[in-house]
Amino acid sequence: MLKNEHIFDNMIKLHAIGGYDEVGRNMTCLELADDAFIFDCGLFLPPIVEMEDSLKNKAYSEKMLRSIDAVPNDLVLDENKVREKVRHILVTHAHLDHVGAVPFLGDRYNAEIAGTPFTIEVLKTLIRDNEAKMKNPMRVVSPNSSFKCGKYKIEFINMTHSTLQTAMIAVHTEKGVVLYANDFKFDNSPILGKKPNYERLAELGKEGVLALIVDSLYSGDERKTPSEKIARDLLEDVMLGTNNKDGCIIITTFSSHIARLKSIVDFGKQLDRKILFLGRSLHKYVSAASRLQLVPFAKDIELVSYANHVKKRLKQVEKERNKWLIVCTGHQGEPGSVLDRLSRDYWDFKFSPKDHVIFSSRIIPSPINVANRSRIEKKLKEKGVRIFTDVHTSGHCGREDLRDLITMVNPKHIIPAHGDLDKRTPLAELAGEMGYKLGETLHLVQNGQTLKLE
Amino acid sequence: MLKNEHIFDNMIKLHAIGGYDEVGRNMTCLELADDAFIFDCGLFLPPIVEMEDSLKNKAYSEKMLRSIDAVPNDLVLDENKVREKVRHILVTHAHLDHVGAVPFLGDRYNAEIAGTPFTIEVLKTLIRDNEAKMKNPMRVVSPNSSFKCGKYKIEFINMTHSTLQTAMIAVHTEKGVVLYANDFKFDNSPILGKKPNYERLAELGKEGVLALIVDSLYSGDERKTPSEKIARDLLEDVMLGTNNKDGCIIITTFSSHIARLKSIVDFGKQLDRKILFLGRSLHKYVSAASRLQLVPFAKDIELVSYANHVKKRLKQVEKERNKWLIVCTGHQGEPGSVLDRLSRDYWDFKFSPKDHVIFSSRIIPSPINVANRSRIEKKLKEKGVRIFTDVHTSGHCGREDLRDLITMVNPKHIIPAHGDLDKRTPLAELAGEMGYKLGETLHLVQNGQTLKLE
Amino acid sequence: MLKNEHIFDNMIKLHAIGGYDEVGRNMTCLELADDAFIFDCGLFLPPIVEMEDSLKNKAYSEKMLRSIDAVPNDLVLDENKVREKVRHILVTHAHLDHVGAVPFLGDRYNAEIAGTPFTIEVLKTLIRDNEAKMKNPMRVVSPNSSFKCGKYKIEFINMTHSTLQTAMIAVHTEKGVVLYANDFKFDNSPILGKKPNYERLAELGKEGVLALIVDSLYSGDERKTPSEKIARDLLEDVMLGTNNKDGCIIITTFSSHIARLKSIVDFGKQLDRKILFLGRSLHKYVSAASRLQLVPFAKDIELVSYANHVKKRLKQVEKERNKWLIVCTGHQGEPGSVLDRLSRDYWDFKFSPKDHVIFSSRIIPSPINVANRSRIEKKLKEKGVRIFTDVHTSGHCGREDLRDLITMVNPKHIIPAHGDLDKRTPLAELAGEMGYKLGETLHLVQNGQTLKLE
Amino acid sequence: MLKNEHIFDNMIKLHAIGGYDEVGRNMTCLELADDAFIFDCGLFLPPIVEMEDSLKNKAYSEKMLRSIDAVPNDLVLDENKVREKVRHILVTHAHLDHVGAVPFLGDRYNAEIAGTPFTIEVLKTLIRDNEAKMKNPMRVVSPNSSFKCGKYKIEFINMTHSTLQTAMIAVHTEKGVVLYANDFKFDNSPILGKKPNYERLAELGKEGVLALIVDSLYSGDERKTPSEKIARDLLEDVMLGTNNKDGCIIITTFSSHIARLKSIVDFGKQLDRKILFLGRSLHKYVSAASRLQLVPFAKDIELVSYANHVKKRLKQVEKERNKWLIVCTGHQGEPGSVLDRLSRDYWDFKFSPKDHVIFSSRIIPSPINVANRSRIEKKLKEKGVRIFTDVHTSGHCGREDLRDLITMVNPKHIIPAHGDLDKRTPLAELAGEMGYKLGETLHLVQNGQTLKLE
Repeated sequence: MLKNEHIFDNMIKLHAIGGYDEVGRNMTCLELADDAFIFDCGLFLPPIVEMEDSLKNKAYSEKMLRSIDAVPNDLVLDENKVREKVRHILVTHAHLDHVGAVPFLGDRYNAEIAGTPFTIEVLKTLIRDNEAKMKNPMRVVSPNSSFKCGKYKIEFINMTHSTLQTAMIAVHTEKGVVLYANDFKFDNSPILGKKPNYERLAELGKEGVLALIVDSLYSGDERKTPSEKIARDLLEDVMLGTNNKDGCIIITTFSSHIARLKSIVDFGKQLDRKILFLGRSLHKYVSAASRLQLVPFAKDIELVSYANHVKKRLKQVEKERNKWLIVCTGHQGEPGSVLDRLSRDYWDFKFSPKDHVIFSSRIIPSPINVANRSRIEKKLKEKGVRIFTDVHTSGHCGREDLRDLITMVNPKHIIPAHGDLDKRTPLAELAGEMGYKLGETLHLVQNGQTLKLE
Repeated sequence: MLKNEHIFDNMIKLHAIGGYDEVGRNMTCLELADDAFIFDCGLFLPPIVEMEDSLKNKAYSEKMLRSIDAVPNDLVLDENKVREKVRHILVTHAHLDHVGAVPFLGDRYNAEIAGTPFTIEVLKTLIRDNEAKMKNPMRVVSPNSSFKCGKYKIEFINMTHSTLQTAMIAVHTEKGVVLYANDFKFDNSPILGKKPNYERLAELGKEGVLALIVDSLYSGDERKTPSEKIARDLLEDVMLGTNNKDGCIIITTFSSHIARLKSIVDFGKQLDRKILFLGRSLHKYVSAASRLQLVPFAKDIELVSYANHVKKRLKQVEKERNKWLIVCTGHQGEPGSVLDRLSRDYWDFKFSPKDHVIFSSRIIPSPINVANRSRIEKKLKEKGVRIFTDVHTSGHCGREDLRDLITMVNPKHIIPAHGDLDKRTPLAELAGEMGYKLGETLHLVQNGQTLKLE
Repeated sequence: MLKNEHIFDNMIKLHAIGGYDEVGRNMTCLELADDAFIFDCGLFLPPIVEMEDSLKNKAYSEKMLRSIDAVPNDLVLDENKVREKVRHILVTHAHLDHVGAVPFLGDRYNAEIAGTPFTIEVLKTLIRDNEAKMKNPMRVVSPNSSFKCGKYKIEFINMTHSTLQTAMIAVHTEKGVVLYANDFKFDNSPILGKKPNYERLAELGKEGVLALIVDSLYSGDERKTPSEKIARDLLEDVMLGTNNKDGCIIITTFSSHIARLKSIVDFGKQLDRKILFLGRSLHKYVSAASRLQLVPFAKDIELVSYANHVKKRLKQVEKERNKWLIVCTGHQGEPGSVLDRLSRDYWDFKFSPKDHVIFSSRIIPSPINVANRSRIEKKLKEKGVRIFTDVHTSGHCGREDLRDLITMVNPKHIIPAHGDLDKRTPLAELAGEMGYKLGETLHLVQNGQTLKLE
Repeated sequence: MLKNEHIFDNMIKLHAIGGYDEVGRNMTCLELADDAFIFDCGLFLPPIVEMEDSLKNKAYSEKMLRSIDAVPNDLVLDENKVREKVRHILVTHAHLDHVGAVPFLGDRYNAEIAGTPFTIEVLKTLIRDNEAKMKNPMRVVSPNSSFKCGKYKIEFINMTHSTLQTAMIAVHTEKGVVLYANDFKFDNSPILGKKPNYERLAELGKEGVLALIVDSLYSGDERKTPSEKIARDLLEDVMLGTNNKDGCIIITTFSSHIARLKSIVDFGKQLDRKILFLGRSLHKYVSAASRLQLVPFAKDIELVSYANHVKKRLKQVEKERNKWLIVCTGHQGEPGSVLDRLSRDYWDFKFSPKDHVIFSSRIIPSPINVANRSRIEKKLKEKGVRIFTDVHTSGHCGREDLRDLITMVNPKHIIPAHGDLDKRTPLAELAGEMGYKLGETLHLVQNGQTLKLE
């Protein structure tokens, strides 16, 4: 971006590693005089989804994942001699596009990994599942707490999102706070967990925020993102307000969305149904949360993930279908998911026209997802099953939430993140409206670029 | 439709008068042996909106409205000698596209007009405003009650919609019930008023429904329409969950939507703001409802409709803008509405960038509405005003509500209504899925056509 | 549709067999006093595309195809005792959705199969490829000629479409002409073959057309469909007007579209490139047309379909890539097509960033096609290949062509065909504008229904 | 963009004045050591379209146009002391968004105005119509020629677009060529005028292009923009290939598009119709071109612009409507245009259902245009008139043309122009694919920003 390197010796640098040319493999590095911090280290999922089946079932290696561009290209940090300066990998939350590359790349850094309890618990599962070898120490940081690394205070600010214990991360430097705010919504009725820590954000604004790296995924949606409470009400309407007394109810949603799962279980109990959770991914996230006592409904459900157990349970369901609520994987139509298999009669489970299938999600709009979902929905319709879609609210902030955040923390520089140029453009336009200037205080960067701030 | 007239002497006939080739001017006539009943008698608004300004301010005449196709073409009933047989005009609810043509056409019939209390109260206002001469007697029918006309029982079944006291109307004939179900949603949390009378619908289904004339406006939306409670929660989020402490809040919504207005007032009171209702249409509907004690918030608001009063009040608002909540007309960007005038500085009211404008509505997607709204939003944005749109849920049933209704009342014949072929096609497809056959038990008709049922 | 069967003894009946609830498996039966005629007998392709791979490579049976609803359900003709009366199966053109079910169902009828020379030639190939046993005699009918079947004259009127020798078929009955007009465009510059026979259509209009069964696939497109000459000009622009001097040119288009292939070859020759046709489907159609001397460019190309030949040729292409033009299958992204394999490096052919891939087609917009195409395009882009899409014009009539046809032949009854209700609704609306009345002279029917005409 | 001003003394500066935050009021200033050049100086039309009628009919003043942001905000050049250094205002072509602000701002500069003959001729008309006082000398530059300004060579390279004599402008500096390439297509069959001067572009590429300022309006369209020849063929199809023998033909298109007008007149003559051009804007452009002998069809048409002449002529048309072809203004539905007035029976001209109205244009998709066009089309349909839309090809380059341009001239820096961020993002993405780096060699700037190049 700038030509005369020597004049910036004292500057703070931001290295855009991943997530600036795609939605996924988020990774940003903050480089200070002698230290550096990495924010997030996630996977890019589409190339993994599109891999040949033969590859899918092997354990993944760093090399293979690099070859298909599924992990951030952090080799640029080696070239710039930044790698050795990295002290911490700071992860915001438990989603794979933010934490999923740690098992493959974390080992390259002589650095401690820090995250909230749920995030670290999920990370441990990922490490185990991938048989990854990692020597990095782990630090569990409670939401709304902080720790010191040398002269730098690092703070995890509680935030709401579509999974538990999500944080914005603030690094306090001599030149001001660098605030990493990827993946959040401002939800005042989050069903599970605390509300966003607006007070602390306002305080940071007063202390002085040098730079805000911020989620722009839905910055083009001219609205405040509706609360999780809305999703709960929509679920209530569909689960309690339609005629389902003679059929089985099958719901699919994001496996890590424990608040959503709580609402589903609550209404399942009101319907007096036995509740079955089917699928490996559900098992992974719900178990991790249970170990931390974060699942209030743990005793109300049965978690089943092995295929032959699933088959056995489904036999029982068929005998008295109107006594059961099934929660399962497959909301994006993923081949091999429980809903996909159900739709293909894989376990000899026969749908009845009295059955309801509820998608408590929205399609992440890639062509492959659209086709997968369409295939499943078509099969379900042929069986006469009744379908309810989009019983959901998003976990990402809209344009008006972003305006509130920017007003609150009043940063000197804004760096839109989480998506290709197309996704980040609307946030750049909003910042423009608010007085920021492109190339001066507002920065559109690409993977592999370095930004110097003062 | 059929060639050999004589063989149908004993048949029940349905005359499609209006609303089968457009969204608006709803009117259907049920012809029995010696009697006939009209369901609804509404206006088609677009030609009125597009009239030259010079015409707009005159009182309208039947002749003029016929010339621009703004009223149903009921002259076909004269040709068929049906006019003399009409005993009642039965109106479902207070919206103009259902009741608005009564002041102009009602007089042509020697018939009593029957509706729920709110509907009749609004109708009286319309008659007064248009200086119409009408000798027809009026009958006020409570929701969930019935009356007799000769051998026929006529029943008003309580329903939920985006205004008060909406009804489905059932006429009990020798050959079964004819159920007119235009404009409804199945809302289990309606904020104001009772829930839909599902029990009675189920009973009718058991008694035997010959024909169902039914709202197909959003039959292409594959969902259950969310409850008014969702709109309330969305409003709460936007009114109580954003930073509005330094500005004026201006909300615009449907003037007849008393439940929505109640939610707005409730949150306005929580914000401890003075609440001002501005605009003629708001005045008309809220006053009518107030006279019937249907407005729980009547004492919490001030209703202003005269232009110079509006101006005076706005002066006060400007002095302490963060103490006021304004509810006003203009959600479709209508030229001359209060919001339109505000956006053009008509009353010397100056917007501040701290002000919020909330559209608790969605654009009814005609090109003129889209352009009108776009013009207003652009002006507001130039002033830096913050805008929230689509804080709303619809008053019309979706595909899954329709499936529930059809299952409940199990009609022999289905006649999709409320829209051109394009709007009614998805309902025909749903009915096809459920076993109905086009031209046999499922009927797509056009304005001016007669259908014979047995 | 009508109740009193006896009064219609002398009526002409139309049985809607297939293609009225989907786009595909077109089949309509015209029943007269003692004889009946079938128009088209096609496949529904999506269930075949979505079959498991294991099934795909076997020869298909009638039973299997019926089980997945890939052939018209003509068993309704057995129930109605119509099957024995069928004298001819009249096929309009060589596309699979019009002729592809003949090898599986033709045998059920004691009937001669009649079509234009190219259609019959392709049909023979299909019979051979499917190892079908068929005893039906075949009749080759030149475009713009007719033959007699008892007292009925049957006429094949030359028409333009996206394959050779397409016809509208007229059956002359005592009550007027029944005109079957499925799949056509009005193209005055068709590149190959004659223009539409407008004169004959106008004459039929004067003689009196009782019923028009007509293609409504793109009746919602408010335009006259552009001529094939436009596609040729677009191709010229892309092939001769871009910088492709250092790379290979690869074009994919509809295999049966001989006129399009001619344009491609013409420009390939202008570029002085060697021209290779790769793929089984191309081989099938081009060979059939060649046997009839209908391929003016036969000597200018090399047709390759066996996989190992393909591999060998591609090796040569790689050596001097800018000397070759490849025409291949895969425009819909079909897995297993030549383009799909090329994109996956199946034959060790390596793309260069100098290569051009031209899609002389448009995506038939089903989700699976969209995903397949997206997958291929993504792979090509990763290799840096330059892509040109939609270098194409449609073979189906638009709304204004339909208006011209209806004006020309002035039918008493119109029966929109070729698609579900959604596709046929715009044509019904057009006919409504032109004075036709739904249920009287305009008929929306479903598969399995019978319409009686007089 | 950069902080340490002193180190850039020798740099070339680009000032983005207008057209970087909107589509319109294009203006860019190239600042060199002692001289500066302005590229284009256009109007932003939407605020003018939306002005109150009372203002519209007055002559416009600089002050008024500035107040509604209809002219570029060139006051930034005063602040930077650049104004005095401006030697030439270089205009690329005759469209108002490129040349229309010259009559209001040109006077502020002690600078010669240079353009091609047609551009200068239109500019003189604009100056006259607006009663503007301008002392600037004018220089007429033939396409494909150059002149010197001090040490700088300024070159006008012939280009194709939707009006005559469009140019790309190259300024040769010590550090390389600065190429201003706003509004062009690569059309190899332009109907009127020469083809693009590809040879010269390639030579510039070899000489060394420092910066390319380039049209990104349709950079998101993944295609090569079709030639004007395609528009001609589409017109031929619609004018000669439909049944119009009993009605009047009315065509509306861009008034400055002389090549399109030529095609229309050619086919009008083939139809042996008298040809009438109606409307002030048509009169202005066609007259200007005629004065330069650029209208080959000048003697074949009658140009009418005064309202009472129009009325008289229309009377004649009505008497023998099938003898006339009318070409008129109103393709965007502009209120007051000839087509708008015709649709409102302003001149007592009555449409017949045999008449054809052809839109040889596409809607420029702002909400007001969409509503205006919809209003006119609705009125025409009510009269039964037959409508043909989108008989058109664009005058702006698509993504693949841009790729060709960039490959040809191989610039060091790319500055996407002609639109807000949203329009320029796809070009930035294309440049990214081709190896350019955001903030380094690829620059997204806003109105009022300065870019320093080396």
